[in-house]
Amino acid sequence: MADTVLFEFLHTEMVAELWAHDPDPDPGPGGQKMSLSVLEGMGFRVGQALGERLPRETLAFREELDVLKFLCKDLWVAVFQKQMDSLRTNHQGTYVLQDNSFPLLLPMASGLQYLEEAPKFLAFTCGLLRGALYTLGIESVVTASVAALPVCKFQVVIPKS
Amino acid sequence: MADTVLFEFLHTEMVAELWAHDPDPDPGPGGQKMSLSVLEGMGFRVGQALGERLPRETLAFREELDVLKFLCKDLWVAVFQKQMDSLRTNHQGTYVLQDNSFPLLLPMASGLQYLEEAPKFLAFTCGLLRGALYTLGIESVVTASVAALPVCKFQVVIPKS
Repeated sequence: MADTVLFEFLHTEMVAELWAHDPDPDPGPGGQKMSLSVLEGMGFRVGQALGERLPRETLAFREELDVLKFLCKDLWVAVFQKQMDSLRTNHQGTYVLQDNSFPLLLPMASGLQYLEEAPKFLAFTCGLLRGALYTLGIESVVTASVAALPVCKFQVVIPKS
Repeated sequence: MADTVLFEFLHTEMVAELWAHDPDPDPGPGGQKMSLSVLEGMGFRVGQALGERLPRETLAFREELDVLKFLCKDLWVAVFQKQMDSLRTNHQGTYVLQDNSFPLLLPMASGLQYLEEAPKFLAFTCGLLRGALYTLGIESVVTASVAALPVCKFQVVIPKS
């Protein structure tokens, strides 16, 4: 049991620590949060490393959709001990992965009052998805959005080469 | 399996990130590494939180030594999936906990050449021990030393009140 909470505690501390020293606390609507990109980068490298360790040799990834299904199942279970709740696609390179009870948002109260705090708890995981995809041979852009806590949607866009 | 490596990957990234932005890279022999105390503080808070979650209600801690044994067994297994290799004490408030193959040092090559890099991989865990002890009602000073990688000794000193 402690394994799971260990990751969650460490993630919480990491977010708190980065925000405590963020030199750009109020960048405005068009601004960039340096801490968000730092977290995303850490997630990317952890995702790359995890992608190499997951038991993908047992699977044949013939299509992009198979890779996304693998992330929703194996990666999510490895990190969060649960599967993603749904996966939708427009069959043109855009995928929406929905977690109805995203563990890193659960410590926050449900509802709308902490919604503006949500992005800092999503950046690491966006990077994690992007990093795992990169290891599996797919370059992507991953963003996340929250309409109501703790439901979270990750959008993966894979540009056509 | 991924749980364990997840914590280790995240710890590695955290150390790398803190060192990338450390404003005090070469403090000299008497200097303080801000990043070390940041890591120690993060470890302390994670240790506090873990200490509250570990199944200590099944144990009766009548003596200080029992608490230390609990850390060597339950806490270490929860975090590193192994027990501490030895515990020694002078029966006057000083305890030496030895891990002959400390997981967070294993990625480094064995031997002496990376010895000076070791402290940054120990600070978080020193804090973790201090935080767990604090939750269990004991204030302490925890330091770590490495004579040869990957063997690591943690010294816990509990001042007599």
